[in-house]
Amino acid sequence: MKHELDYFFHPDGVAIIGASDNVLTGGYHIVRNVMGGYAGTVYPINPKYSELLGIPCYPDISSVPDSFECLIYFIPARFIVETIKKCAGKGVRAIIIESAGFAEVGNEGHLLQKEAVAVAGSLGIRLWGPNCMGYLDGHTRNVFSFMYTDKWKTLMKPGDVSLIVQSGMLSAGFLMSVLERDAIGISKVCSIGNKCDVNEIDLLEYFVNDEETGVVGCYLESIADGKKFLQACQSTSNPIVVLKSGRSEQGKRAAMSHTASMAGDAHILAGAFKQAGVVQVVDLYELIDIVKAFSFIKNYRPDKGTAIMTFSGGAGIVTTDLMADWGIPSAHITQESLRKIKDVFPPWMEPSHPLDLWPAVEQNGLDTVYRSVAEVLMQDEGVDSVIIECFASRYFDPSFFSSIGDMMHQYGKPVILWLVGEQEVVERYKTYSEENGIPVFGEIGRCMQVIKALRFHFSKRGKV
Amino acid sequence: MKHELDYFFHPDGVAIIGASDNVLTGGYHIVRNVMGGYAGTVYPINPKYSELLGIPCYPDISSVPDSFECLIYFIPARFIVETIKKCAGKGVRAIIIESAGFAEVGNEGHLLQKEAVAVAGSLGIRLWGPNCMGYLDGHTRNVFSFMYTDKWKTLMKPGDVSLIVQSGMLSAGFLMSVLERDAIGISKVCSIGNKCDVNEIDLLEYFVNDEETGVVGCYLESIADGKKFLQACQSTSNPIVVLKSGRSEQGKRAAMSHTASMAGDAHILAGAFKQAGVVQVVDLYELIDIVKAFSFIKNYRPDKGTAIMTFSGGAGIVTTDLMADWGIPSAHITQESLRKIKDVFPPWMEPSHPLDLWPAVEQNGLDTVYRSVAEVLMQDEGVDSVIIECFASRYFDPSFFSSIGDMMHQYGKPVILWLVGEQEVVERYKTYSEENGIPVFGEIGRCMQVIKALRFHFSKRGKV
Repeated sequence: MKHELDYFFHPDGVAIIGASDNVLTGGYHIVRNVMGGYAGTVYPINPKYSELLGIPCYPDISSVPDSFECLIYFIPARFIVETIKKCAGKGVRAIIIESAGFAEVGNEGHLLQKEAVAVAGSLGIRLWGPNCMGYLDGHTRNVFSFMYTDKWKTLMKPGDVSLIVQSGMLSAGFLMSVLERDAIGISKVCSIGNKCDVNEIDLLEYFVNDEETGVVGCYLESIADGKKFLQACQSTSNPIVVLKSGRSEQGKRAAMSHTASMAGDAHILAGAFKQAGVVQVVDLYELIDIVKAFSFIKNYRPDKGTAIMTFSGGAGIVTTDLMADWGIPSAHITQESLRKIKDVFPPWMEPSHPLDLWPAVEQNGLDTVYRSVAEVLMQDEGVDSVIIECFASRYFDPSFFSSIGDMMHQYGKPVILWLVGEQEVVERYKTYSEENGIPVFGEIGRCMQVIKALRFHFSKRGKV
Repeated sequence: MKHELDYFFHPDGVAIIGASDNVLTGGYHIVRNVMGGYAGTVYPINPKYSELLGIPCYPDISSVPDSFECLIYFIPARFIVETIKKCAGKGVRAIIIESAGFAEVGNEGHLLQKEAVAVAGSLGIRLWGPNCMGYLDGHTRNVFSFMYTDKWKTLMKPGDVSLIVQSGMLSAGFLMSVLERDAIGISKVCSIGNKCDVNEIDLLEYFVNDEETGVVGCYLESIADGKKFLQACQSTSNPIVVLKSGRSEQGKRAAMSHTASMAGDAHILAGAFKQAGVVQVVDLYELIDIVKAFSFIKNYRPDKGTAIMTFSGGAGIVTTDLMADWGIPSAHITQESLRKIKDVFPPWMEPSHPLDLWPAVEQNGLDTVYRSVAEVLMQDEGVDSVIIECFASRYFDPSFFSSIGDMMHQYGKPVILWLVGEQEVVERYKTYSEENGIPVFGEIGRCMQVIKALRFHFSKRGKV
């Protein structure tokens, strides 16, 4: 039997009311995007056209010749109640309302939204939105959203990252930025807007049993029910990363005007998140980077310290300072390991932590030095994880990262990478390293946030 | 008359001892880089070759047919003293020692370095380094450094940013990353390594009277003389941004092994920096981004609050929260301004701060909305600066940023920009906006650090 949310994620037939042939409107891009991925039948609805993007277009819901399970709503807010009623006769079980003009614009919109929920509830229809971007699915390739680009066709790769985003534009322009920047595999990206019915708790509960989801990232302006939210978070061993906005007084007021959200008390929430094992973040790429880290790293026993391998003594010291700032324990490398590492060092230089490898690289090459030092660290019992800082040199091939990726899995010790150098070479190294399981981050400070989040999540799991 | 440091920055004749034809060695790249930019005569020295890269190569210093003012040293450390002595007879006044193997490798190297300083001092020769990358100059195009790439030829643009970097690799691979990422105009990038003689204080004092330098960024592992350093910082109205590593106990130990530096007490230093008006940072791209902000923004009266214009209600709330975290005052926009802004908003939406512009953009276009709202904010007396968050849309031309750049200069209110969207379009918007004086940063959190630094520096200046 279908789960209620399956009518959104796996519907038999999708209609779009508010379909358009004007490329400057969302109504055009929704049809284009749905047609570009969804495997079932698509029914555009608009009395202006008999055909749209090469398929039949219908004047209204009742004219659609078949029943269909999901409707995407993109006409003005005031038509919502009559539309829901018409949908009932067509077998619709799920409506994604992407239009704005509901609770976020004041009392009138609020009442309209409330009425829509009541009517839909009485007809067995679930509502998604309003004031949202719908969703994308990396596996089914359903893009039920008005993103103004086809780029998702090449950029969206299937994976285990699901996002719940309570904001429209954040799941469109920002998402494309993210997918171009990072090799993040997508399960479901859900933009829930005013979340008048389907909310973050429904989705979190759904994701617990969703085999395609391994990590959940949330951008939320409010939490529908704190207790249920935390219960949902605790019912899974998958990491959950939350950016909760409206933490400040001014942010709270802004959240009210954006998605009609009551933001709640930030301090109480932060404490509750911590207790429930939720990783809390405060910035947008921070959210993405930490989610990315969890999609790469599935095993970690944070019982020792983090070791630093670097191309630059300076970067190594900056990293050491930042680790101290963030309370990340530094690895105690054994004398035996240092003796082994000495084999690739020049005679005049004694290895010490952080491991400044450039003089060794000049003598023995980037690949040999990084591979052999990584292996020693993986076998060192004082090391539970490694930050690698590497100069992406065009004179070497990054293939040694595949060996290091293998070691990472063999020993269950996370490795994360920071790269500098010419952009083109950095991109090549980054792609290769991420294909081999080692995630790359853009700043040393971000590496700290990542390790802190990994330590937090996997310590919690260790205690369960 | 030449300043002592002019023999480094404007020498009449440069020789390179340790020149090589092996592309995997620094000795090759130094010659190649010097020849690629320096306007005077270049003398490679190595007994193995009679010619190198198409110019005569000499077996030793005494064989060089002319006198020359600057020597770049890239042979093993042990030859330094005899080399200095030979240099005296050739009119050399400045030696850049790029080899390692001195104080950073222990007592023997330390003694050697000390002897070199004494001998050079007695002969009127200044020493730069050792264990460093030399320097680059964006105006003369002198690249007296072993960077393994020609990319600087296209990437290095003249400008007013000078950097003092106490680490070799940080000024090479990292610098290329920086120049590819950002439109930063370079005055002088100086890698000073163990700074046995020429140090950060000499350079800071030199930069005070250097018309090509408008902002100085430092990466330092130690400070030669705290009092003099702070005096030098206070003797200029130009902003000085410092990343001082070795703040933690473990970082201090690492700094000792890297450049033989005594890192000093971090808390005392942080207090002294603050008092002297030095902007302190803790991460590498943070240093670069803040220096970049100061190279773009020359006027600011931080007496009111910062306004937010955004494409995304969500991003606006995140920004509002982060401003509260960072203690950045939020602008109080007047009712009159809000009334003016309402002209470009859809009827159902009342403008409020943070200004969520997307619904207005859908109605009136990106260019019209961003330009007209920016103008209102520039004229609002409650606003002293603006963060613009923009979705880089391929359906619009970014030329409205030139109007906004003009306003920024006219009203003396800084504008900084955060962009999302498809990478190619973002790059186009970024280039255009930076060409028109508006700096772009990659994360909202980084925008906070930038505004905080601007407020700090320009408040201090206001008080003087």
